[in-house]
Amino acid sequence: MENKEKGLIIVNTGNGKGKTTAALGLVLRSFGNGFKVLILQFIKGAWKYGEIEGIKKLGDNIILKQCGLGFSRKDKNQEKHIAAAQKTIEEVREAIFSCEYDLIVLDEILYAINFGLIKEDEVIEILKNKPEKLHLVLTGRGASEKIIEVADLVTEMKEIKNPFKKGIKAQKGIEF
Amino acid sequence: MENKEKGLIIVNTGNGKGKTTAALGLVLRSFGNGFKVLILQFIKGAWKYGEIEGIKKLGDNIILKQCGLGFSRKDKNQEKHIAAAQKTIEEVREAIFSCEYDLIVLDEILYAINFGLIKEDEVIEILKNKPEKLHLVLTGRGASEKIIEVADLVTEMKEIKNPFKKGIKAQKGIEF
Repeated sequence: MENKEKGLIIVNTGNGKGKTTAALGLVLRSFGNGFKVLILQFIKGAWKYGEIEGIKKLGDNIILKQCGLGFSRKDKNQEKHIAAAQKTIEEVREAIFSCEYDLIVLDEILYAINFGLIKEDEVIEILKNKPEKLHLVLTGRGASEKIIEVADLVTEMKEIKNPFKKGIKAQKGIEF
Repeated sequence: MENKEKGLIIVNTGNGKGKTTAALGLVLRSFGNGFKVLILQFIKGAWKYGEIEGIKKLGDNIILKQCGLGFSRKDKNQEKHIAAAQKTIEEVREAIFSCEYDLIVLDEILYAINFGLIKEDEVIEILKNKPEKLHLVLTGRGASEKIIEVADLVTEMKEIKNPFKKGIKAQKGIEF
């Protein structure tokens, strides 16, 4: 077995539900193992009441934080976004190299990359140099070949059937 | 919007990681919303220390239970499995129609169906008649057309890259 102590770079991508939800499941598992976890959110307002409350109830070992000014899918003011981008990438770098965490979730970072808000090359350089033992989870649609190349474990969440497209309202406590 | 109060039948399938992990994430979200949750495990020993501990720490609203005698992937004694099957399907039926839960996770039930341990038609009949508001999550590889038909939300977790096939040892607290 090689790299026995190597922390993994995990990517949850695809057009389906479950990318952030699987990251949350991983957080719960890590919590059970006594890990120190940081969740950095790249999209403002993307998280629902249930998951925020759930995380809060896990206690001080699990920290949930909004990046930079926070990007909003609704906000078309890209200039403002780009102004926040440099601050965001510095926050990511600082968190990763702080060595304070066992697991860091970069939620919707792929969205921020694909929207041109943060530079993929900068992210990849950080990933390549991350502390050996740190586990990272990156979520978001459209993982690029470069991201897949640097990752260890990549899963595509593919939508097979989605009720919300049929007009069923998203359900409290359940909605993905 | 139709079926405003309808509980969803969610299926996490595919050959990739994250099926059970996404269900765990949903459990954490439901926990945050104060839901009462039951997780029924169809495969004995499939769960790791971290997730069991994590669930335990969530308190009394989240119940984790092994079905029947529990099927083991290693156990080739199918006769014994089938003897446990009827007991298992009764447990599933009882849990679902107890109306005690907001969410029930049937973890690896698709494995039990595909392995011929429980009858798909019996499961589908239960799904079709489930209490209106109850949310159900079914996990496992190879969801059949019939299961997809009765489900509301179906996601395929597709493996794009898997380090464990390259000989990297599964990591404590992280392994899917």
